[in-house]
Amino acid sequence: MSSTAGQVIKCRAAVAWEAGKPLVMEEVEVAPPKAMEVRLKILYTSLCHTDVYFWEAKGQTPVFPRIFGHEAGGVVESVGEGVTDLSPGDHVLPIFMGECKECAHCKSQESNMCDLLRINTDRGVMISDGQSRFSINGKPIYHFLGTSTFSEYTVVHVGCVAKINPLAPLDKVCVISCGISTGYGAAVNVAKPPKGSTVAVFGLGAVGLAAAEGARASGASRIIGVDINPKRFEEAKKFGVTEFVNPADYDRPVQEVLAEMTNGGVDRSIECSGSTSAMISAFECVHDGWGVAVLVGVPHKDAVFKTHPVNFLVERTLKGTFYGNYKPRSDIPAVVEKYMAKELELEKFITHSVPFSEINKAFDYMLKGESLRCIIHMDG
Amino acid sequence: MSSTAGQVIKCRAAVAWEAGKPLVMEEVEVAPPKAMEVRLKILYTSLCHTDVYFWEAKGQTPVFPRIFGHEAGGVVESVGEGVTDLSPGDHVLPIFMGECKECAHCKSQESNMCDLLRINTDRGVMISDGQSRFSINGKPIYHFLGTSTFSEYTVVHVGCVAKINPLAPLDKVCVISCGISTGYGAAVNVAKPPKGSTVAVFGLGAVGLAAAEGARASGASRIIGVDINPKRFEEAKKFGVTEFVNPADYDRPVQEVLAEMTNGGVDRSIECSGSTSAMISAFECVHDGWGVAVLVGVPHKDAVFKTHPVNFLVERTLKGTFYGNYKPRSDIPAVVEKYMAKELELEKFITHSVPFSEINKAFDYMLKGESLRCIIHMDG
Ligand SMILES: NC(=O)c1ccc[n+]([C@@H]2O[C@H](COP(=O)([O-])OP(=O)(O)OC[C@H]3O[C@@H](n4cnc5c(N)ncnc54)[C@H](O)[C@@H]3O)[C@@H](O)[C@H]2O)c1
Ligand SMILES: NC(=O)c1ccc[n+]([C@@H]2O[C@H](COP(=O)([O-])OP(=O)(O)OC[C@H]3O[C@@H](n4cnc5c(N)ncnc54)[C@H](O)[C@@H]3O)[C@@H](O)[C@H]2O)c1
Ligand SMILES: [Zn+2]
Ligand SMILES: [Zn+2]
Ligand SMILES: [Zn+2]
Ligand SMILES: [Zn+2]
Repeated sequence: MSSTAGQVIKCRAAVAWEAGKPLVMEEVEVAPPKAMEVRLKILYTSLCHTDVYFWEAKGQTPVFPRIFGHEAGGVVESVGEGVTDLSPGDHVLPIFMGECKECAHCKSQESNMCDLLRINTDRGVMISDGQSRFSINGKPIYHFLGTSTFSEYTVVHVGCVAKINPLAPLDKVCVISCGISTGYGAAVNVAKPPKGSTVAVFGLGAVGLAAAEGARASGASRIIGVDINPKRFEEAKKFGVTEFVNPADYDRPVQEVLAEMTNGGVDRSIECSGSTSAMISAFECVHDGWGVAVLVGVPHKDAVFKTHPVNFLVERTLKGTFYGNYKPRSDIPAVVEKYMAKELELEKFITHSVPFSEINKAFDYMLKGESLRCIIHMDG
Repeated sequence: MSSTAGQVIKCRAAVAWEAGKPLVMEEVEVAPPKAMEVRLKILYTSLCHTDVYFWEAKGQTPVFPRIFGHEAGGVVESVGEGVTDLSPGDHVLPIFMGECKECAHCKSQESNMCDLLRINTDRGVMISDGQSRFSINGKPIYHFLGTSTFSEYTVVHVGCVAKINPLAPLDKVCVISCGISTGYGAAVNVAKPPKGSTVAVFGLGAVGLAAAEGARASGASRIIGVDINPKRFEEAKKFGVTEFVNPADYDRPVQEVLAEMTNGGVDRSIECSGSTSAMISAFECVHDGWGVAVLVGVPHKDAVFKTHPVNFLVERTLKGTFYGNYKPRSDIPAVVEKYMAKELELEKFITHSVPFSEINKAFDYMLKGESLRCIIHMDG
């Protein structure tokens, strides 16, 4: 038992008081975990574009004040009642979707959309009691994605915690907690490109480049990266991207450009941008007869995907995925082992690092399109 | 060699002179087949809703005067240059999509969207020379779907002809030429419902009921029929439909009704109505995590499929198919054998029959929602 177990912990957290305003470092009170919850000490966290969308709250429900952050690594500080498979000191990744292991989804081979613990971007409280575990002077500060890793300590449902190899360096494997698994899994678990196939990836951030890595690992021979930020292109070569297309360079829809480059369309496409128009292009650029498109980007609340139904009738398939269809507790320890076995490189996704006190810089890097992942060191 | 080979044949055809106006029985001249074409004597044809859409030409490109018809059975009268695998007297089904056996689609295991001979609803001429083979007093009458079976004789590309068992009764197996294969194949080849699964079928015409048959053959245990025509329901029980929903009976979207009936959504849905709103409902009613929806209905030219992208992200799949993904020449002879082996019942799809001279009655029956398939006897 750690000496803090059962106690309120006071620690630093980066609080978003208002949409789009710099986070403010505050002393927060973190309540002890209730039944089926664990309290984690976060050691490293990184920034994913999903945090930025909900912080900007343009086209997303504003929930403030809030502690963002969902891509992280840490250790268990204490566990609540009923938690049997985690103990203080375990090395873990908190994950924005959980696995109760009992619902129809958790029992299905195909789904990771746990009924109890699926992603919920608008909930700011714990599911057990509808309360927040964070407060400042008795006033609640809301959670984000059930993880809120921009705090030295956080409380998470046990179903949203993957226990991993304690030898794995948390400053690297923390990126497996969201972006890398999401993109890599979207390729290997969902798009499943056949050997020798052509794959288009829309959006060459960390998620898209992880999808490119997954496509390469699956044996794709042409990987076409599509991004409106030309700075992405040089870097993308390290991730197996063989060709680049900037939609801004053409005066016709990019799906037409891709169809011309590929004799009718790509075999698979994976959209990792969050842009509705990119989602439509990603669907319409796959080859008729056999093409499969996979949506990964998080859309605006009011986004509408539109296409002519004949685009389906000519035998295209469209799917979507959260977290690359990985089940967080069952599957993620093995993804960490892939890194340990040097089958999955993480270093090249990590372009920046900042101390926790400078977390707002991570937002700047992402907004400027300069970073892939920026690791935030919680002890700094 | 038949005595008519190489000659123009004069015969009866039901000509659509104008959109939505009754067909007029005319004497037409049918030119001999050119290279890679065959001329067929049609013995039986039936009416599919696709004929009706293009005849009404509401929301579809008007191409008149035209000879409709694409679901039929007949015998080869003569063959053009280069045709080696069909001979006069062969029993055949003309099919609205062809199989050249040489393009990437024909070589793919997954696609039947032949590059050369894929469905083209707006073309009214033969592909070899851009001309029609039908004329009246030297003026061309346009083809429909490359088949134009509402004529005693018609000219078809050899790739659009399935040679079948000559013992098969053409007045029954003619329905395999479009509707039955389309629906049945959409279930067994595309939706592939697992044993014990729940399937929704939207639109309980012949295509939808064939999809229900396919779902039952695949082992689905609940088959929910959805139709706005309540007359369909009694009949549908013969096709394995276990429950019925009429969207008009509810004041909320039918996808919500289906989700309530099925604890979150059906495992598979197959849309066979041509209605855009049914396509959207068919997609949104499948269970998240694993549900697969298949579009079959032919949409309006300007139809738009719309949904929130999150409906995909929660791990639903949407596909479409023409002709149930069957390859016409390679696969259809075996579907006919399924009928011969009493594994596929066709009689129950055939609710009406009329002599060719009364073909307009078949349109009335379909427009009133009274018929499934009405067989038109060309000798009457
Ligand atoms: N489905 C999931 O489980 C899941 C998980 C994590 C992230 N996401 C989403 O994945 C997306 C990518 O996340 P990230 O962290 O890699 O973000 P990022 O900002 O690092 O990368 C996004 C890239 O998309 C590009 N882009 C934007 N609009 C585009 C367009 N119209 N066409 C082509 N490219 C375009 C940007 O220039 C950028 O390079 C975001 O939408 C994020 O919310 C989804
Ligand atoms: N994809 C293909 O290869 C292919 C081939 C043949 C037919 N089709 C299409 O399949 C569809 C069915 O053809 P059919 O010959 O069985 O037609 P049909 O007219 O016999 O049956 C269609 C049924 O759909 C019902 N319907 C109409 N709107 C509906 C709605 N909003 N919700 C629920 N039900 C609705 C009608 O009441 C009718 O019972 C048509 O759109 C046709 O063009 C497609
Ligand atoms: Zn993320
Ligand atoms: Zn679960
Ligand atoms: Zn048809
Ligand atoms: Zn072909």
